[in-house]
Amino acid sequence: MIHALTNDINLIKSKNPLVHNITNFVTMDFIANGLLALGASPIMAHGRQEIKEMVGLCSAVVVNIGTLDEYLVSSLSDVFEEASRLKKPIILDPVGAGATVYRTNTCLSLLKRGVISVIKGNASEIIALSGRLGKTKGVDSQDASEEAVDAAKEIAKEYNVCTVISGKKDVVVTSNEIRVFDFGHPLMAKVTGMGCLLTAILAAFHAVNKAPLESAMHAVTLMGVVGEITAELPAVNGPASFKAAFIDQLYNVDVQQIARKIK
Amino acid sequence: MIHALTNDINLIKSKNPLVHNITNFVTMDFIANGLLALGASPIMAHGRQEIKEMVGLCSAVVVNIGTLDEYLVSSLSDVFEEASRLKKPIILDPVGAGATVYRTNTCLSLLKRGVISVIKGNASEIIALSGRLGKTKGVDSQDASEEAVDAAKEIAKEYNVCTVISGKKDVVVTSNEIRVFDFGHPLMAKVTGMGCLLTAILAAFHAVNKAPLESAMHAVTLMGVVGEITAELPAVNGPASFKAAFIDQLYNVDVQQIARKIK
Amino acid sequence: MIHALTNDINLIKSKNPLVHNITNFVTMDFIANGLLALGASPIMAHGRQEIKEMVGLCSAVVVNIGTLDEYLVSSLSDVFEEASRLKKPIILDPVGAGATVYRTNTCLSLLKRGVISVIKGNASEIIALSGRLGKTKGVDSQDASEEAVDAAKEIAKEYNVCTVISGKKDVVVTSNEIRVFDFGHPLMAKVTGMGCLLTAILAAFHAVNKAPLESAMHAVTLMGVVGEITAELPAVNGPASFKAAFIDQLYNVDVQQIARKIK
Repeated sequence: MIHALTNDINLIKSKNPLVHNITNFVTMDFIANGLLALGASPIMAHGRQEIKEMVGLCSAVVVNIGTLDEYLVSSLSDVFEEASRLKKPIILDPVGAGATVYRTNTCLSLLKRGVISVIKGNASEIIALSGRLGKTKGVDSQDASEEAVDAAKEIAKEYNVCTVISGKKDVVVTSNEIRVFDFGHPLMAKVTGMGCLLTAILAAFHAVNKAPLESAMHAVTLMGVVGEITAELPAVNGPASFKAAFIDQLYNVDVQQIARKIK
Repeated sequence: MIHALTNDINLIKSKNPLVHNITNFVTMDFIANGLLALGASPIMAHGRQEIKEMVGLCSAVVVNIGTLDEYLVSSLSDVFEEASRLKKPIILDPVGAGATVYRTNTCLSLLKRGVISVIKGNASEIIALSGRLGKTKGVDSQDASEEAVDAAKEIAKEYNVCTVISGKKDVVVTSNEIRVFDFGHPLMAKVTGMGCLLTAILAAFHAVNKAPLESAMHAVTLMGVVGEITAELPAVNGPASFKAAFIDQLYNVDVQQIARKIK
Repeated sequence: MIHALTNDINLIKSKNPLVHNITNFVTMDFIANGLLALGASPIMAHGRQEIKEMVGLCSAVVVNIGTLDEYLVSSLSDVFEEASRLKKPIILDPVGAGATVYRTNTCLSLLKRGVISVIKGNASEIIALSGRLGKTKGVDSQDASEEAVDAAKEIAKEYNVCTVISGKKDVVVTSNEIRVFDFGHPLMAKVTGMGCLLTAILAAFHAVNKAPLESAMHAVTLMGVVGEITAELPAVNGPASFKAAFIDQLYNVDVQQIARKIK
């Protein structure tokens, strides 16, 4: 896998794909810096009068409902229509699905449009969207249980998407494949927006590699392994030093070092 | 006090109380990371269609008017109604009260609802809300003068709230008690959102300890002492390294070290 | 130049001018911390009901359209009217001009009001606003070409503004002067919001020095030289450590060290 992953990373670094983020207000700065560090070009834009034009310019669209409101939801109709028309991949982060009816229903109505390429949630969000009984506690992640993987499979089949469960283990699920990844570090769960950044990185990989399963595997692997490498640095003493060092490591990404970790 | 403070910190770390932040767009990321580092679960949500449901899920609500607009103000009516009905504590940060009529009046109308548990402002904000002549220069903090403490007492009595003045010295005031704390470090005033984070931390403590005076004393002490500990670290060279190290110290909070500082 | 620059820096540190930022949601935190580190007082406020009052309180207004929407655009009419009436300088950052029609037209209509003091964009934004054929790729910067300088001159003349092109070289252009600055470091382009911060710093300098050319020269020099100094620090390993160290260096700004760099 390291050769294909390296190839995608090099494509991101050489092509600088524009990733359009329609996203929450909390972690925008972190997402933008993470994409930039990896080599992608971030754009954050939500204004109704330009949102279709922005979709037209970009190579992938991230929809993250972390701080959804009526304005965001009403704009998404245009975004989905235009992305579908121009065949731009949409990557959905259903932040807090299951926590409120508004979030669950917004995500379900987006999934039902049938044009999402990848959905990335934690276990409770994925379970909630599968229609199973699930309770999410805010936006906290939970472990990928058998129930979550079953839920991911159902979502993958019903909506024809690649479903990624993030957590202690990350799982990439399509209608006929399940891949489990055991990379990462506990400090990642202590940084606000690490899941949002994974979603944006999924979009960056998808922008240069149209195979949803493979690009998702690469994004998940890169994030997890960079997390492990970052946690070993002597300057990392807690979540904030980890967060900064993680961005630096994305920038200095060392494929040899990654290869040693994933074999 | 160290035993009661330790007890509250342990409760936050074990219960991970959900703190709902209806807050400004500037310091959201810092607040979320600070709450997470301490052990609380942050949620930022402002959408009118879910805001009552979010209040229902959380253990405390932060209202911070740093970037207020009509949307925020109109949502607060629902927030206050629901929080009052469900007896969820509301912690108000009246950012910039006194600087504009809109901020002052918004805060006064919120205070008049009679359901706020704690209000935390700098001296000029507290003076402005007491109806005394006060001029605030933006959101800068000022020292807690005798005038500010008198203003805090008046607010505490009139609206039945615990009033916290943040600044070089922090003062916690209820209708019949005044406690002064002389912890902290000048670099804290050079980090945008340090006051917003104190407000969120006040909410986290209040979520696990319903005694407003005691939980406020604990929050103020923790923030100040962690500030002092952080400033002594060799890696701290200015406000940005201080900011990151402060989050790391909240995460690695060492009760023994705190005990040595506060005795 | 070092004496005049030092003088302006000292004025910012002693007067703490209030800079009102009507700005994007992505980089607000970074801008606020950068202004605070330098000694200015940042305020971020967009609410229609207080925006004129905020303009009245401040010493300079930053308008940054990074995440523009109808609300922002409709507020700007009040901002420009009040700033013009009270002779408060307006500094415009036309983020993404040329990328969408909405951005280009919004900026042009703001320029046509004739009350902007300084406009700061990257080469593609400046070219787009001059009416020349220009395509911008998101908010990425490009080098200041001859075409960009010609575009800057046209804008300077037509709208009576000081035009700053940021990029590998920074260029300050008025109707009759062109000054080129070759300070800075490539890592600056890898930090989201470094251009936004330059705009805010331009406003801080303009707040204490009403000569647009000179204050712009000082802002551009300070940012570039601090970037160079920061990049040489052993703790800087990538964009995130650079970003934090940059803020620390703004706080600890050492005029002697700057003097050695610019001679």
